[in-house]
Amino acid sequence: MAERGRGWARAVRGLLLDVSGVLYDSGAGGGVPIAGSAEAVRRIKASGLKLQLCTNETQATRENFVRKLRAMGFDVSVAEVTAPAPAACRLLRERGLRPHLLVHDDLVPEFADIDKTNPNCVVLGDAAENFTYANLNEAFRLLIGMEKPVLISLGKGRYYKETDGLKLDVGAYMKALEYACDVQAEVVGKPAKKFFESALAELGVPAEQAIMIGDDIVSDVGGAQQCGMRALQVRTGKYRPSDENHPEVKPDAYVNNLAEAVDIILQQL
Amino acid sequence: MAERGRGWARAVRGLLLDVSGVLYDSGAGGGVPIAGSAEAVRRIKASGLKLQLCTNETQATRENFVRKLRAMGFDVSVAEVTAPAPAACRLLRERGLRPHLLVHDDLVPEFADIDKTNPNCVVLGDAAENFTYANLNEAFRLLIGMEKPVLISLGKGRYYKETDGLKLDVGAYMKALEYACDVQAEVVGKPAKKFFESALAELGVPAEQAIMIGDDIVSDVGGAQQCGMRALQVRTGKYRPSDENHPEVKPDAYVNNLAEAVDIILQQL
Repeated sequence: MAERGRGWARAVRGLLLDVSGVLYDSGAGGGVPIAGSAEAVRRIKASGLKLQLCTNETQATRENFVRKLRAMGFDVSVAEVTAPAPAACRLLRERGLRPHLLVHDDLVPEFADIDKTNPNCVVLGDAAENFTYANLNEAFRLLIGMEKPVLISLGKGRYYKETDGLKLDVGAYMKALEYACDVQAEVVGKPAKKFFESALAELGVPAEQAIMIGDDIVSDVGGAQQCGMRALQVRTGKYRPSDENHPEVKPDAYVNNLAEAVDIILQQL
Repeated sequence: MAERGRGWARAVRGLLLDVSGVLYDSGAGGGVPIAGSAEAVRRIKASGLKLQLCTNETQATRENFVRKLRAMGFDVSVAEVTAPAPAACRLLRERGLRPHLLVHDDLVPEFADIDKTNPNCVVLGDAAENFTYANLNEAFRLLIGMEKPVLISLGKGRYYKETDGLKLDVGAYMKALEYACDVQAEVVGKPAKKFFESALAELGVPAEQAIMIGDDIVSDVGGAQQCGMRALQVRTGKYRPSDENHPEVKPDAYVNNLAEAVDIILQQL
């Protein structure tokens, strides 16, 4: 707890921030900022601490995502966003993979420079309305027809909330294809260790001097801790009181929101 | 092997037959009979052996399914078909469950007499074109909103082949909902033990006097053997030579097709 000592806030040089549920709540018209979060981002920057957003967002390019955040009052740039699609592009290039994309229309431009002819892997994102019966069968047929099927999943979330209700997230469709093809997907995004490592590299701070702040006990907190970072859970976004009894993951501290976390961290500088 | 002794064919009083891949191959216009199978069904009946079709078919009512088989020349009746939907209806009634149906339009009439108001479970079949993003989200929301989600899946097949290509089967969508809701589905259909037991009850023959004949090494052969039946794999339908090296399931015999199985069984009577 924030109240039980603030040793966790010492010797910090950089912060990784989850976005949805920490900076803003998604909803009608793109979402609303969480009270105090825009000011908190400004204070982090003014303090000289480094900052990087570490998100599993795959329904928009980073450019459009940043445009939305800036419209909500957040002083952030594209270079400050670590997201699954660019990480997947690096992986595709490294391994000479040519993807068939089953992703949201608005994410496609992230893959503009990637060779997509004669696909030898499938990249799955939160395709939303593109998760049609025909598109799922097409992705499945491509995979099952490969000598060694390669399925790359941008995150593995179970579901998320939008204003018109809960929606199945990419992880559910990943499981469907995994089962049908008898393969294990490679997950690019939180909580994959490689993804946190690339976020740290972009932050420019070693794990032991960085703190991850997120609302997802497993994906944000658990994932970051497994990379040697400290991690806080905010009591905003998808946080639920039952998270505080999670059988496997225990955050270094709970904070009511990002603003409180920044208060404490800046006091310890 | 059929060639390696025929002891497996002794003391038989009834046969359970898988349908797709044993009696006919699905394809354009509903499918084509496998050579010799219609005659084999007639010979089984003429011999006095009991016969029951044991299928995971969920894209049609039994009435329409039997109509299709009869049009292909098979002398079978509705009472001779054990299929998942009627078994699911029995289960729903026994447990006072009111289903939300995510199934093929043509299967809905099987549930005509079941109370579907204020659903307290989800029944999932091979919904084919009904597997839309909206329908999957709707089924998911109902499940996640239940105090104790109950998901009943009509089979758990991974995929099947149609004339226009491979299609994801109900098992893939079952896995998606299982993961999203953190539940385990109850499978009604092969290879569930209860399903084979109800097929045997309808056959009217104890397990040790019955032989299952199917093309699916796991679902047909493995499932039936776990109920104490003998089981043959035909080399038609979805049979693949690699099935003969299956790490877990070994049929009592392989036969080239249903006609050969019936030849051998009738010779031993």
